[in-house]
Amino acid sequence: MREETCIFCKIANGDIPAATIYEDEQFRVILDLGPASKGHALILPKNHFADLLALDEETSAKVLALAAKIGAAMKKSLGCAGFNLVQNNGEAAGQTVFHFHMHVIPRYEGGPKMVSWEPGAPSGEELAELAESIKKELA
Amino acid sequence: MREETCIFCKIANGDIPAATIYEDEQFRVILDLGPASKGHALILPKNHFADLLALDEETSAKVLALAAKIGAAMKKSLGCAGFNLVQNNGEAAGQTVFHFHMHVIPRYEGGPKMVSWEPGAPSGEELAELAESIKKELA
Repeated sequence: MREETCIFCKIANGDIPAATIYEDEQFRVILDLGPASKGHALILPKNHFADLLALDEETSAKVLALAAKIGAAMKKSLGCAGFNLVQNNGEAAGQTVFHFHMHVIPRYEGGPKMVSWEPGAPSGEELAELAESIKKELA
Repeated sequence: MREETCIFCKIANGDIPAATIYEDEQFRVILDLGPASKGHALILPKNHFADLLALDEETSAKVLALAAKIGAAMKKSLGCAGFNLVQNNGEAAGQTVFHFHMHVIPRYEGGPKMVSWEPGAPSGEELAELAESIKKELA
């Protein structure tokens, strides 16, 4: 199922060319045009899913195994020391294209920390309360 | 399989208490003690895997479905507008505990962009060369 106006549908299905590093029946993996680091790749399902919440079970089950394969190949070919997976859901989370994609970002020895945050320091009580409220939705 | 000295093995298996929001036979999901935002959670497999590359197939296939479940519950209970998945592999990528964990980070309307980077601008030629070198390792 493709969405006519979705640019990642077009790229994933080969209608718009991209620097492809992997392709199978369900996925295409391309290099990001605005990379966070050398070799930054995007895993794109060929079917259209807006985000993680929309992903079907079959696709969902395969993404991390594919990401591991890509990450391992990056370590060998690019000599990166590690890699980050980043996947954004919703505009507030920095999602700009509403077709599920998983970023695989190589990280090099001595390179900058691109994925970081200032950690908060909630009390045990605050955490317990928060946990309760999320848990209720999961029950 | 647990690793005796691993703190996330102890937490995942209930030997060290944590603010738990979800638990099943294979996973425990807890709130991060140094959260990037209110409700920041960590998905921990109960078995020990150092990182994504070490993850077994059965576990790997379930993480994203669980992350979607957690993200959906966060939107309902916390009122966040979206969420990020972040997963770090290797010290150079910011991994500090060497037991696979997936961050689920709620994001709020008007909140800061915590996962961001300065995009590079490689030429088409550079991208094609890079793609070739990674593709070789995947063949």
